[in-house]
Amino acid sequence: MKTDRLMTPDDVEAAARQVGAERYHIHHPFHRLLHGGKLSRGQVQAWALNRYYYQAMIPVKDASLLARLPDVEDRREWRRRIVDHDGDAGSIGGVGRWLKLAENVGLDPEYVRSTAGILPGTRFAVDAYVHFVREKSLVEAVASSLTELFSPGIIAERVSGMLANYDWIHEDTLAYFKPRLTQAPQDSVWALAYVKQHARTAEQQQAVLGALRFKCDVLWAQLDALHFAYVEPGLVSPGAFVPA
Amino acid sequence: MKTDRLMTPDDVEAAARQVGAERYHIHHPFHRLLHGGKLSRGQVQAWALNRYYYQAMIPVKDASLLARLPDVEDRREWRRRIVDHDGDAGSIGGVGRWLKLAENVGLDPEYVRSTAGILPGTRFAVDAYVHFVREKSLVEAVASSLTELFSPGIIAERVSGMLANYDWIHEDTLAYFKPRLTQAPQDSVWALAYVKQHARTAEQQQAVLGALRFKCDVLWAQLDALHFAYVEPGLVSPGAFVPA
Repeated sequence: MKTDRLMTPDDVEAAARQVGAERYHIHHPFHRLLHGGKLSRGQVQAWALNRYYYQAMIPVKDASLLARLPDVEDRREWRRRIVDHDGDAGSIGGVGRWLKLAENVGLDPEYVRSTAGILPGTRFAVDAYVHFVREKSLVEAVASSLTELFSPGIIAERVSGMLANYDWIHEDTLAYFKPRLTQAPQDSVWALAYVKQHARTAEQQQAVLGALRFKCDVLWAQLDALHFAYVEPGLVSPGAFVPA
Repeated sequence: MKTDRLMTPDDVEAAARQVGAERYHIHHPFHRLLHGGKLSRGQVQAWALNRYYYQAMIPVKDASLLARLPDVEDRREWRRRIVDHDGDAGSIGGVGRWLKLAENVGLDPEYVRSTAGILPGTRFAVDAYVHFVREKSLVEAVASSLTELFSPGIIAERVSGMLANYDWIHEDTLAYFKPRLTQAPQDSVWALAYVKQHARTAEQQQAVLGALRFKCDVLWAQLDALHFAYVEPGLVSPGAFVPA
């Protein structure tokens, strides 16, 4: 699949799925510790706190992408992502639901929202994603969202594992994830079709696969930073959150 | 020093030096392992390989800053940094010298130059610095260079320690660092004067200190990524350099 010859759209999809199979953060040891019940409450707090920054920046990167889509139909489609995350009068949205998750695991929501305690590694990885979507070609920007192809699997593992293995975590705590199980597939079906249609040259196809590898790195590096600071060797960056 | 009242320029300098005393990466365990002779050749290679990306992007960030300086005298001053790093007909420059360092510790310079094997954590931290200098106020962009106030100390430790503790490292290997001992103080004297003169409101002064904290995070996070991948727990990101 790593040839630089022109691929069929279905080969592009197969190559993209292969990137996920190799690099998605479902393979990261921090994920296994999290859903396996091996983390303390403080370590789960660190995860919730840091991941809040990722959640909070998702609609920002989606707004950047929305601003670059020239087609009305495409914009309507992409706009739904912002509604999903920011909510509206009738719905709290994903960012708000993540804030509730953080509060439910024992964090002060004002502290979480301030992002003052997140790790530099988290901030740099998330900001890299925002900049990527702003600066790369449109088809690469869309392709970087394709990790959602793989998210139902990790969400299923995470939710069932965390409910089974932490007696202080309840279904309410993890309410963020339930809508994602329908939203993510809807979004990724559209994004995959877009990428298959718009990556027309061998160079664009390779760029698309590079974008997906980049996004896997963004997710992976966030777990690296958490693991380094809060698991092993357990060295928290100066100024970052220290569990009570 | 963390008051939001207006400080005198000398208080700004004292507060900046305090940020360095607390957060400069001279305190990072990876630095201690490096100069203490505790790393294998492969670990030193990983350091040289990853840090190449930082070196290579320094003149890029300096060019961004140069493009934003409205004053001729200031541009002449800042331009010297680009010459120092990129060199000219008569001088190889800092980026080239780093490439030689990498080659001298056993890496293929073409592989190093490609940056294909660097850790995502390195790339995200360095790119965060480039974006910061492009996007923040000019006085913050200049202030983010002020870690050079502290670099002679870390260079002295690194060079003397590495020469004493690794029999395969020679003075030639570390030739990169020698000119830095005169360049960095010259640059930081100017940058410090600029910051003291241009940070005129309490808000600007706090922003300047925030910029320096940010830059300390950029350096610190690079050592976090190295330590995580190559020391403890030793989990190399998918696709990154694996020592032979």
